[in-house]
Amino acid sequence: MHGVAIVGGSGYTGVELMRLIDAHPDLRLMAVSSRQYLGRPVADVFGALRGRVELSFSAPDAPELLDGVELVFLAVPHKAAMAAAPGLLAAGRKVVDLSADFRLRDAAVYEKWYGPHTCQDLLAKAVYGLPEFYRHQVRRAQLTANPGCYVTSVLVPLVPLLRAGLVDSQSLIADSASGVSGAGRGAKMNLIHGEVHEDFKAYAVAGHRHTPEMEQELSLAAGREVRLTFTPHLLPMDRGILSTIYARPVAGAGEEDARRCWQEAFADEPFVRVLPAGVLPQTKHVRGGNMVDIAVASDPRSGLLKIFSALDNLTKGASGQAVQNANLMLGLNETTGLLGLATTP
Amino acid sequence: MHGVAIVGGSGYTGVELMRLIDAHPDLRLMAVSSRQYLGRPVADVFGALRGRVELSFSAPDAPELLDGVELVFLAVPHKAAMAAAPGLLAAGRKVVDLSADFRLRDAAVYEKWYGPHTCQDLLAKAVYGLPEFYRHQVRRAQLTANPGCYVTSVLVPLVPLLRAGLVDSQSLIADSASGVSGAGRGAKMNLIHGEVHEDFKAYAVAGHRHTPEMEQELSLAAGREVRLTFTPHLLPMDRGILSTIYARPVAGAGEEDARRCWQEAFADEPFVRVLPAGVLPQTKHVRGGNMVDIAVASDPRSGLLKIFSALDNLTKGASGQAVQNANLMLGLNETTGLLGLATTP
Amino acid sequence: MHGVAIVGGSGYTGVELMRLIDAHPDLRLMAVSSRQYLGRPVADVFGALRGRVELSFSAPDAPELLDGVELVFLAVPHKAAMAAAPGLLAAGRKVVDLSADFRLRDAAVYEKWYGPHTCQDLLAKAVYGLPEFYRHQVRRAQLTANPGCYVTSVLVPLVPLLRAGLVDSQSLIADSASGVSGAGRGAKMNLIHGEVHEDFKAYAVAGHRHTPEMEQELSLAAGREVRLTFTPHLLPMDRGILSTIYARPVAGAGEEDARRCWQEAFADEPFVRVLPAGVLPQTKHVRGGNMVDIAVASDPRSGLLKIFSALDNLTKGASGQAVQNANLMLGLNETTGLLGLATTP
Amino acid sequence: MHGVAIVGGSGYTGVELMRLIDAHPDLRLMAVSSRQYLGRPVADVFGALRGRVELSFSAPDAPELLDGVELVFLAVPHKAAMAAAPGLLAAGRKVVDLSADFRLRDAAVYEKWYGPHTCQDLLAKAVYGLPEFYRHQVRRAQLTANPGCYVTSVLVPLVPLLRAGLVDSQSLIADSASGVSGAGRGAKMNLIHGEVHEDFKAYAVAGHRHTPEMEQELSLAAGREVRLTFTPHLLPMDRGILSTIYARPVAGAGEEDARRCWQEAFADEPFVRVLPAGVLPQTKHVRGGNMVDIAVASDPRSGLLKIFSALDNLTKGASGQAVQNANLMLGLNETTGLLGLATTP
Repeated sequence: MHGVAIVGGSGYTGVELMRLIDAHPDLRLMAVSSRQYLGRPVADVFGALRGRVELSFSAPDAPELLDGVELVFLAVPHKAAMAAAPGLLAAGRKVVDLSADFRLRDAAVYEKWYGPHTCQDLLAKAVYGLPEFYRHQVRRAQLTANPGCYVTSVLVPLVPLLRAGLVDSQSLIADSASGVSGAGRGAKMNLIHGEVHEDFKAYAVAGHRHTPEMEQELSLAAGREVRLTFTPHLLPMDRGILSTIYARPVAGAGEEDARRCWQEAFADEPFVRVLPAGVLPQTKHVRGGNMVDIAVASDPRSGLLKIFSALDNLTKGASGQAVQNANLMLGLNETTGLLGLATTP
Repeated sequence: MHGVAIVGGSGYTGVELMRLIDAHPDLRLMAVSSRQYLGRPVADVFGALRGRVELSFSAPDAPELLDGVELVFLAVPHKAAMAAAPGLLAAGRKVVDLSADFRLRDAAVYEKWYGPHTCQDLLAKAVYGLPEFYRHQVRRAQLTANPGCYVTSVLVPLVPLLRAGLVDSQSLIADSASGVSGAGRGAKMNLIHGEVHEDFKAYAVAGHRHTPEMEQELSLAAGREVRLTFTPHLLPMDRGILSTIYARPVAGAGEEDARRCWQEAFADEPFVRVLPAGVLPQTKHVRGGNMVDIAVASDPRSGLLKIFSALDNLTKGASGQAVQNANLMLGLNETTGLLGLATTP
Repeated sequence: MHGVAIVGGSGYTGVELMRLIDAHPDLRLMAVSSRQYLGRPVADVFGALRGRVELSFSAPDAPELLDGVELVFLAVPHKAAMAAAPGLLAAGRKVVDLSADFRLRDAAVYEKWYGPHTCQDLLAKAVYGLPEFYRHQVRRAQLTANPGCYVTSVLVPLVPLLRAGLVDSQSLIADSASGVSGAGRGAKMNLIHGEVHEDFKAYAVAGHRHTPEMEQELSLAAGREVRLTFTPHLLPMDRGILSTIYARPVAGAGEEDARRCWQEAFADEPFVRVLPAGVLPQTKHVRGGNMVDIAVASDPRSGLLKIFSALDNLTKGASGQAVQNANLMLGLNETTGLLGLATTP
Repeated sequence: MHGVAIVGGSGYTGVELMRLIDAHPDLRLMAVSSRQYLGRPVADVFGALRGRVELSFSAPDAPELLDGVELVFLAVPHKAAMAAAPGLLAAGRKVVDLSADFRLRDAAVYEKWYGPHTCQDLLAKAVYGLPEFYRHQVRRAQLTANPGCYVTSVLVPLVPLLRAGLVDSQSLIADSASGVSGAGRGAKMNLIHGEVHEDFKAYAVAGHRHTPEMEQELSLAAGREVRLTFTPHLLPMDRGILSTIYARPVAGAGEEDARRCWQEAFADEPFVRVLPAGVLPQTKHVRGGNMVDIAVASDPRSGLLKIFSALDNLTKGASGQAVQNANLMLGLNETTGLLGLATTP
């Protein structure tokens, strides 16, 4: 049994971590912090956890976040994460950071999108926590940067295709849509039911912060700089991301080649399902689970590949992936506690 | 490891059973039948199960439904269940029947609501599978009648109060609402999204088939015949039942007495949460889990008790309860495989 | 053409008024105020109105709220309405108040539920704006108190039955459910999509502010004091109220008597539809329109009448009724601008 | 007052036509046919219309579909429309066909996507009913082919840009999403709430029947053959289409040029709203109304134009546009009966 703690447990990634840790046979949640709910029982804020998570919210600097704790999940906003990480690492705790603070390897890129990076020395030590591509590094990491939700949905299908040289790296368009929990749990007018329900819209069309993160990893996979056109949309539902990606295959390549490439790359992956020809991903099939479903189809008119991926933005897109990383960092079986499947319906 | 099978796996209770069995460490699904999908891979029909349930749908009389199977879940409609149960029992298999066929102890009552009962000799052997009240009988049962979804939501809070004589048994009104999965998985016009979404309505107001089942058990608890006024409603959501029950307390009794009665009755129950004063059940807090949340408040104007209960109609209201019963019948820990909590959101 | 203005146009009743006035051939919107959005174009806040409502939000005391204005809609919260009404009336403007400030005839009752009433001299002059029962008074009113949304759904079916002495006035239970727009348009955590979607719950079970308003009018109809048991619920949808009401019929009376009573009472009502036997109201059938659909069924077991009513909480439950009142107060045809039907789906 | 009839009134386009005609001051609905509901009162099938549409469904060949009727809306599936149109035209009635039967000018293209065309002589006489581009032809038409829903959402923004030569006609990708009413009103498993709610997916990715219709009109606008990459998606909502379109601007052109082009092209259009820079379309803003909202943004990384359009698939995407065409064909003001705005929320 490994003790873990959560710094910043008032949001949806925080409560999702608590749900997953509750179901995890080898992790024990020692403490969870929240400035907003300081001192309140977790069950009063998150009724789903009543009777099972008996903790109350701690202060962010409370000793119980360290005592008996091997690994800390940072579920705070960016900037707050880079303020908290050095102390935890210095105290010998492993850290999985769900914010963006250690995802970008280049501090200048970080600054452009988020503002100054005040903890640059840790950037080189941080491991990008997408286990499907960085499993071995994560196993040895002290600090893991948990990828963005949209990013995971784009990288999982594209990285193998770029590594294999099957698609033109300069042709990529990612058109993604997310359930509203991706925008966090905040009392904001644009998140209330009356504004979201029965609505669909694009947002952040001139530049979303996940773009540089995607480009960083796509460029590494392609071996050259990749520029991506990315458009996020907001869905009238709680959970789920579907990305529809357009890519020009290199001459002679088609959807079968892409599918075969994936089948090889993901043959042993427990959380990636390569769908057979003619089957397309649905967010409902991954809701609450840690799966990524991917598929590909050739457009018969343009020859473009249409690539699809679905995941749950809070599970494989955030907290599930964080537990997957924690499993690796703690020497556990990677899938422990993460095998729950989506409900139907 | 105990082999189990599902007869009738094409509906929502069937797929929910498969999800729960997949997560269950001591059960192995040997076969699942469906006339509609005969021969098709389960994963082609239920994408959420892809990569984990590798079976194809069997015929209802296929040998694999018996081979290596200790217990069979009947997830077929009423009438079909009473046709299948005798043979399975004769072959030495235990049976959990999710239909209504063995819930009513009086064949005449069954006939009035469902038509002739053709398997009356088994009625006396069947155990009513509400473990919170019939745990010991279920442990020894060969045939368990899994309760109706609305019924479970009404019985859990009311039975202890009637047994304790805290409410007038002639005053009961149950006003319930269910997500649309309670109506099953069928290609019916009244179930399509365009008819259900952004709608709320009552139905079956002159008599719903769950009424006699509630009255049977409430009468046993009260020690006299109970007549219940019951109104079901259809919610624009997939899963969840909330029952709002009105009951006149006996002289001198109030909400605190009711709450105390529950706290005693359910002190050791793993799946019943008695909410503290001022907290009300929400279907979202039990979605996908096997919990029943109950609460009570006195109406200051009329003195009536308002009693609330929430459960997931497919989990505690159907397949979760069926697995709970199977655990008991197979000598397993009652909670095994059923501790998953609702996601938030 | 009659000039009208809206004080407090930033909420859902405000924008619904703007939509209805835009479609009204005889009303012209001269100004709309909002402290929150002062100076911003209405279309920037409410995109649905772009290109048609060209106004920007005014200050609450701006002269354009009076210039050329015959009637003012107060769509501000209670307390704010009673502060604004006297000045408008003194300036010779007619007022339709959508808040609760002038609904309760007894200032002591108001104080109990809302706090001190600072404008009691106007209480006697205010007309309760439920045209189906107070049409003639509304025609002559200078100040109309627009009824609460739940209240309208309960009064429309019950008042005729109480007046006719068909139901026991001491037996009434109203179990109601509302779409989330009934809670207003505010940046509140309990209103965000992640908290509301796929959820159903009761709230305010120990006392909702609409209760005394219902009791006031029900008592007048019954000719004796009525105490009502009322339970509101929150639906995972935007618009619509369904009330399920339980009432004991007087000896010898049944559902046919109730239906006949309604058919007489509402024979000439343009906005009340008495549904035939066997048909039940659905919120979807009244969404966006000004209709109230009502139905009744006898419970064969208890003999109770189950009474159902559906309306759109923002239209007949608020802004549609306000325009209906304004039509009467301005000498227009009562139905002008209000004949739009619900969309399907 | 002009008499109109609807052939095929059992679907969502049929009921939407009835709603719009009910609100239209110059149209009177004389009859509506349905094989499925023959003889049943319309209000029994579509409760929203109760009390206002007093008709019962006629047989498809009933005389009341002609008597006193000037114009017939064909709301039947393709193939059925081409069977019905010649007789109606021969009898001197004008026809607005909402099916695909007369949209494609080339019978060979029709055959490829739909099967043999049995009424080719009418193809040359049919006018493509997108009034924004074919208003003058529609005014003189006897037979108007009402465009597809996705098609309208793609053509409105793209045609002016192609005519003006502002975008590369070989670069076009349309990524669209529709509410589920676009799939019609049928008792199909893939349309039930349990399958659609909280889900998002692509479909028909290897070729959707709206593709050739888009290409036909885009090619005419571009003056050369256009090949379009089109991907439709299914949204968990009832109404609304959002199209996100990627286009490469010609050298030197940017989003301002595109916006200016639209402002000129649509300056006098009553149903097209060109949104200002920084504002993006939302399906909710057009729900139930006849508007198309369009916007454009340059992607700063790739230089691609991102073009957005939102409409209601049943209104501007089908029945609203059909009434707009009928207005033109009958010599009425084009906007009559179509000025209702979307509700908020």
